Amino acid sequence: MPNASDPMQTLTVTLGPRSYPIHIGGGLLSNETLWAAARERPLRLITDAHVAAHYLQPVATALQLPNTSIRILPPGEPTKSLANVEAIMDWLLETRLPRDGWLVALGGGVIGDLVGFCASIYQRGVDFVQVPTTLLAQVDSSVGGKTGVNHARGKNMIGAFHQPRLVLADTDTLKTLPRRELLAGIAEVIKYGMLGDAAFLDWIEQHLDGLLELRDADIAYAVRRSCEMKADIVARDERESSVRALLNLGHTFAHAIETYTGYTQWLHGEAVGTGLCMAADLSARLGWIGRDEADRCIALVGRSGLPTRPPQGMTGDDFGRLMALDKKVASGQLRLVLMRAVGDAVLTADFDPDALRQTLAAFTTAAD
Amino acid sequence: MPNASDPMQTLTVTLGPRSYPIHIGGGLLSNETLWAAARERPLRLITDAHVAAHYLQPVATALQLPNTSIRILPPGEPTKSLANVEAIMDWLLETRLPRDGWLVALGGGVIGDLVGFCASIYQRGVDFVQVPTTLLAQVDSSVGGKTGVNHARGKNMIGAFHQPRLVLADTDTLKTLPRRELLAGIAEVIKYGMLGDAAFLDWIEQHLDGLLELRDADIAYAVRRSCEMKADIVARDERESSVRALLNLGHTFAHAIETYTGYTQWLHGEAVGTGLCMAADLSARLGWIGRDEADRCIALVGRSGLPTRPPQGMTGDDFGRLMALDKKVASGQLRLVLMRAVGDAVLTADFDPDALRQTLAAFTTAAD
Repeated sequence: MPNASDPMQTLTVTLGPRSYPIHIGGGLLSNETLWAAARERPLRLITDAHVAAHYLQPVATALQLPNTSIRILPPGEPTKSLANVEAIMDWLLETRLPRDGWLVALGGGVIGDLVGFCASIYQRGVDFVQVPTTLLAQVDSSVGGKTGVNHARGKNMIGAFHQPRLVLADTDTLKTLPRRELLAGIAEVIKYGMLGDAAFLDWIEQHLDGLLELRDADIAYAVRRSCEMKADIVARDERESSVRALLNLGHTFAHAIETYTGYTQWLHGEAVGTGLCMAADLSARLGWIGRDEADRCIALVGRSGLPTRPPQGMTGDDFGRLMALDKKVASGQLRLVLMRAVGDAVLTADFDPDALRQTLAAFTTAAD
Repeated sequence: MPNASDPMQTLTVTLGPRSYPIHIGGGLLSNETLWAAARERPLRLITDAHVAAHYLQPVATALQLPNTSIRILPPGEPTKSLANVEAIMDWLLETRLPRDGWLVALGGGVIGDLVGFCASIYQRGVDFVQVPTTLLAQVDSSVGGKTGVNHARGKNMIGAFHQPRLVLADTDTLKTLPRRELLAGIAEVIKYGMLGDAAFLDWIEQHLDGLLELRDADIAYAVRRSCEMKADIVARDERESSVRALLNLGHTFAHAIETYTGYTQWLHGEAVGTGLCMAADLSARLGWIGRDEADRCIALVGRSGLPTRPPQGMTGDDFGRLMALDKKVASGQLRLVLMRAVGDAVLTADFDPDALRQTLAAFTTAAD
């Protein structure tokens, strides 16, 4: 099905007046046609130092952006902070971006989430463009309008739903992506297979080497299929009142790991890799999927080079305490996304807590 | 038409799944029936020290709220800050309010705008209840979902649209309102007459003494008619893409005054009073309304005891500089809400800039 010589592909996130296109392909950053609508607006671009070194120039040239309209932040998860939101608000007001101006987020999930949140609250909301430059951002975080920043007490605890006007996923940018970040994106790709498309999971198993080697056709198909699934789910449930929660397969475990490690040691996608293994294990302990199926999912995560176990020293009690802060907790009850079959996830509070304790025990070292 | 013995009146802001009721009347704070839905939720109440002294106890009792679920902030416009948003986020996370919890805003516009904004961004949005205790909040700021905080460079520059679930406007709370704050609310009431209902403006002229003396029937009618007009406008244009902007009659001048005085010396409604006079004057200079009609509006503001001129020392240049930051500026062009007839406002950039200069000169002292 994938074809390396495919030209750019365009999907649409269908949300009435807030619908927007996702363009996927190589060389999009400097495609002036795609930037035409943005060029008519007052613009401010925000990126990080790593991405700026590789990709700021083509975008700034295509957009005819002066340096005063560009802000470069330090790379890494700590950048996703309320302190940076405040600094960006100061900058936008000092440089007088009007309400009909647009923000451009050039970077990975950290930049996209931070800039999207700033766009949602600046003068009660301005439009923004997502230009994801990591695999994780291209297949997941740049699509669907979830924006926000972290808090010492939990990831993405402060944020908003705010849809971009446009997503430009230039797959050429993945060529400079550090290996760890590529793997982090592959964790989210595996997630889509596990939660909603068993055939896609088969495809990932068969094409994992191609993905790890950045074969154009394999990358293009993985990004497109992931975005298709995400766009479809977001169109059905923008505000996560139902089916959208399934995109959080593995994420309650992952967020606990990220909070435990202070957002600095594990990449989000690495934590998701381990979270997927724990969700698969728990689904098997509940008898919802076979042990062999759970092992197959865990093996795929491991074959990718992603961690399949939480950090040394993190205990089951740590998980219990940190998972209680999860946004999916409703009326004091922990809800988890689990698999009732491979490729068929469900959000539920109706599971045996003993099975969860067993999973936590199996994946962690005991507390003293 | 107003009747002092009327029981509680209920209006609805019609916004599809986000529709909500506004209850108006005396004794609502302790009406347990109105609080029934809120009592089923985890709650956090935020108020200010002045309001707490008078009205916290009946609400806390009706809601069976422990002290740990209550936060009391200093009164006054400086409370509407990003620093307080951060402190409230810390508190909500420390006390682990889940995503299905509600916030309760008990107070005037400062508390309502701040708490509404916190509700909009906590865990990407939780529900909240507006309990306005000032006339200004009851007739204006508690209805319609505009939330936000101030920035040194401009008022309400950081915020979101986030509708409450319920508005409880207990007119008994106005009995303890300081005189200045009562007048500040009357400015917004006059605004509704000037922008959209000439007959209501007549009514205000005839019943101004009753309003200033807090006659029950007059207050109840003024709150109801103002809320009716606001609810109707918000239902037609939630996000201020068109007709909602008319609610900002006088506000571009007012925001400049508030920014100039650092939000601390003038109440918002006082600045609106002067802004209404300036908008009326400019409308007359443009020939859109008669000079006698402008004078009639200015006289009504003056008779209320509201200021009809900007602060001493504020120049036309100060207005020019500060008005350029207004959120209604589009593509570099200042837009103002003006009157093409009494009771018929319009948002426009199509006015003679000389007339604006004349209005600014007539209302200010010259710069050196």
